[in-house]
Amino acid sequence: MKTRLTTPGWLLGMLALAQTAAAQTPTPPPRQAAIADLVTANHILANEGVLDGYGHVSIRDPANPQHYLLARAGAPALVTAGDITEYDLDSKPVSNSPAAGYQERFIHGEIYKSRPDVVAVIHCHCLDVIAFAATGVTLKPMYHMGYFLGEGAPVFDIRRTAGITNMLIETPALGQALAQSLGKGSVTLLRGHGAAVVAGALHQAVGKAYYLNINARQQLQALQLGGKIAYLLPEEAARAEQNYERSWDFWKSRLPPLR
Amino acid sequence: MKTRLTTPGWLLGMLALAQTAAAQTPTPPPRQAAIADLVTANHILANEGVLDGYGHVSIRDPANPQHYLLARAGAPALVTAGDITEYDLDSKPVSNSPAAGYQERFIHGEIYKSRPDVVAVIHCHCLDVIAFAATGVTLKPMYHMGYFLGEGAPVFDIRRTAGITNMLIETPALGQALAQSLGKGSVTLLRGHGAAVVAGALHQAVGKAYYLNINARQQLQALQLGGKIAYLLPEEAARAEQNYERSWDFWKSRLPPLR
Amino acid sequence: MKTRLTTPGWLLGMLALAQTAAAQTPTPPPRQAAIADLVTANHILANEGVLDGYGHVSIRDPANPQHYLLARAGAPALVTAGDITEYDLDSKPVSNSPAAGYQERFIHGEIYKSRPDVVAVIHCHCLDVIAFAATGVTLKPMYHMGYFLGEGAPVFDIRRTAGITNMLIETPALGQALAQSLGKGSVTLLRGHGAAVVAGALHQAVGKAYYLNINARQQLQALQLGGKIAYLLPEEAARAEQNYERSWDFWKSRLPPLR
Amino acid sequence: MKTRLTTPGWLLGMLALAQTAAAQTPTPPPRQAAIADLVTANHILANEGVLDGYGHVSIRDPANPQHYLLARAGAPALVTAGDITEYDLDSKPVSNSPAAGYQERFIHGEIYKSRPDVVAVIHCHCLDVIAFAATGVTLKPMYHMGYFLGEGAPVFDIRRTAGITNMLIETPALGQALAQSLGKGSVTLLRGHGAAVVAGALHQAVGKAYYLNINARQQLQALQLGGKIAYLLPEEAARAEQNYERSWDFWKSRLPPLR
Repeated sequence: MKTRLTTPGWLLGMLALAQTAAAQTPTPPPRQAAIADLVTANHILANEGVLDGYGHVSIRDPANPQHYLLARAGAPALVTAGDITEYDLDSKPVSNSPAAGYQERFIHGEIYKSRPDVVAVIHCHCLDVIAFAATGVTLKPMYHMGYFLGEGAPVFDIRRTAGITNMLIETPALGQALAQSLGKGSVTLLRGHGAAVVAGALHQAVGKAYYLNINARQQLQALQLGGKIAYLLPEEAARAEQNYERSWDFWKSRLPPLR
Repeated sequence: MKTRLTTPGWLLGMLALAQTAAAQTPTPPPRQAAIADLVTANHILANEGVLDGYGHVSIRDPANPQHYLLARAGAPALVTAGDITEYDLDSKPVSNSPAAGYQERFIHGEIYKSRPDVVAVIHCHCLDVIAFAATGVTLKPMYHMGYFLGEGAPVFDIRRTAGITNMLIETPALGQALAQSLGKGSVTLLRGHGAAVVAGALHQAVGKAYYLNINARQQLQALQLGGKIAYLLPEEAARAEQNYERSWDFWKSRLPPLR
Repeated sequence: MKTRLTTPGWLLGMLALAQTAAAQTPTPPPRQAAIADLVTANHILANEGVLDGYGHVSIRDPANPQHYLLARAGAPALVTAGDITEYDLDSKPVSNSPAAGYQERFIHGEIYKSRPDVVAVIHCHCLDVIAFAATGVTLKPMYHMGYFLGEGAPVFDIRRTAGITNMLIETPALGQALAQSLGKGSVTLLRGHGAAVVAGALHQAVGKAYYLNINARQQLQALQLGGKIAYLLPEEAARAEQNYERSWDFWKSRLPPLR
Repeated sequence: MKTRLTTPGWLLGMLALAQTAAAQTPTPPPRQAAIADLVTANHILANEGVLDGYGHVSIRDPANPQHYLLARAGAPALVTAGDITEYDLDSKPVSNSPAAGYQERFIHGEIYKSRPDVVAVIHCHCLDVIAFAATGVTLKPMYHMGYFLGEGAPVFDIRRTAGITNMLIETPALGQALAQSLGKGSVTLLRGHGAAVVAGALHQAVGKAYYLNINARQQLQALQLGGKIAYLLPEEAARAEQNYERSWDFWKSRLPPLR
């Protein structure tokens, strides 16, 4: 602003303060926004029945691709920002955090190692896929919202890697074996356990986990109807990529008010 | 009102004003009421699980049959009156609206062109019909609430029209092909995608979309029970036409309070 | 209370008033309580998904067995005490009520005529029985909560009585034909339509309608598992009679607060 | 705390009182906490659909292994601390309680007699297992959350013990027969009735009852998909033991606020 008189320094300072105050909703620092989004993802996945008391979701640290952010062990519905812990890709907590981490955090760390393109990882006991994993019937895309199944849906069987276990991916070696099963795709089932789902964005991962179950239900219905099933062709599936942002908005709006 | 004395003009005016004030809930202009009803339809369809984050519903403009009203792109549960946009039947926004429209608005425009009798159009990813569209098993009326299936339930396969695509009806030509599949009926399925449902009234369209899914579930159950299925005869179905007003009242009462 | 002095009349009157005031929740007259219970039954059936926007429930008038009480036409979830209308057994409104009655009230009137033991009648479009009615697979008691299916579950097909119709029981003659199908049992299915359920008490009728659907779901599952199904024997079913009072208490507690 | 002067007795007393007051949430006596947990278990089982108006859950009395705690007869959703009654293992109320007990409390007493390791017992009409009990298809662990099915899932048929009955375990003799069927496992089904589930901890029993139904649904799906089903091997199942604490936390958080 031009003035005939020299603007005193103190006045300029006052004007700067006034401008700052006028920006009523300041943008949160990126890390804080990322953590808030991850907390919301936890709540959405629980509220929509993709996760129950078990399961977890992480994001690659936006500030450091060699780290990832994951809640400490607890039910996803109850996760708060204070639970979010930073891990290196060996799944060791970066801050000397006393809180217990998920036994299966190696699912996340090892996938982030093998997949530089992946920004979010979800582990669910996805109820509708258990039967597919148990019978070896391959999930395929029934409609465009399940497009990512066109990339394949391998089944990881822990027994081939480690013999008789408690079924949990609780070591780096097991996480690596799981990441190998995942390959370059969006999902791998785990026999007798659930699934791991990945994406290049958190909202997209949440959508994939949700529609994985919907697609499984529809495929079972189609197999019950019998006859030839017209799945999406691989080229159709590839073109039908979704970002699921509109679903995210819908699911976020359905979250119960915080108590 | 008769009086012995001549009623002064100013007194008559005062009485008229008093009568108007006494009519405590003035009738909203028709367009405003139509928009409010369309917003409610969006919310009902989301709340009853017919639409999720995706899908949309429109009405022909009550003031101009060459236009239709449809929300701008967004989750149906979150639509407000301010989102309702007016389109011509080529699906161009009438007001120079900067808001993005649904990519698939051509479903609406092209159906309104080919079906002068249609007043409301719904596009859903109706979960229970995907398996029927994929297997070619034809939906038929299981009970009177699914009466409209007596008119037929063709399956539109985008591959026959346009080869390999992303499955979306995102051009006028594709909308025309879909409208051709719909013909004179109430519903056409879309292989690998969902359904389009039409009616001569908005509430009836909402009811058809809802009971389309219920009927599909029941037909799958009947096929699982095996044996001969006694669907409604075409003449029974035609006579069993429903307006679904009572369902509309019920579903409207179930909407959560606005936050 | 004995006193040495004669208790003055006014004092006795005051004591009587005091006693009445002390009875803080006075017992409502029987008719009022019966109507309140009928309204609650409407709400429970809607809230538990037995009825949707359609369907209805009545009770025989506790004061006059030649009359019955039924809401005027409207969604069960929205019924209030003011909607309850008194009908004679020819289903004519007793008070010269201008409100429209359910087209299918003849289901109630004609059953009350043929079944002096029946005190409550429910007509539902019970979603899980439609497939059974369409295929002629007979519903049988899968567990003790479905005990009443041991009495039989005939299917009424309106076409045998009246040829091509709109499927509705909208005349006394059709109501009589339906009552004939019901016979002495608790339930008759209606092909392409739903079911009618009766009991000697309102709460029991509500329980029968609810568990009719549960039992149907379980029977479909059993048929899918294959092999011989060990239904309850008729004598087991007869002994396993339920009054469903505990379910009524549970369902009543789940009703949303009145808005 | 060291001071140069002798701390007066009264001052020490005041400091002790201050410390006690500062412990703001005093630990409730163990019995009170156990009763509160049992009430919560009732509410969780109802809220998650494991129990409806019927069914019950008990714990062995923490103060006396020859007694158990069980609500008096009523819907689980409505149980309060005041309903919890103490019984001996012959299922006689210890306090001369006038309240009616569950007719089937013998399920609890007789299991506590034959199973010193059991601390909690649940009786449910678990909807998803009825078809398995009726067809004799044996439930097996589909995933780690159903690990306990690796111990077996026998079916108790009351007809083999007592001929034609009303299906209820309403005598000690019938309770003993049921406990025999249970053997050393976590669950026994009851033909035409439901299931009994046991565990060494209350939260674990609640988890087993919940996941019993989930596993049953998944097994039915797998049988519908056809082919060989890769259930958890007995050794995998044994290693995959869950305490379900995280599910308990989740389900507790989902309880509606008390009205």
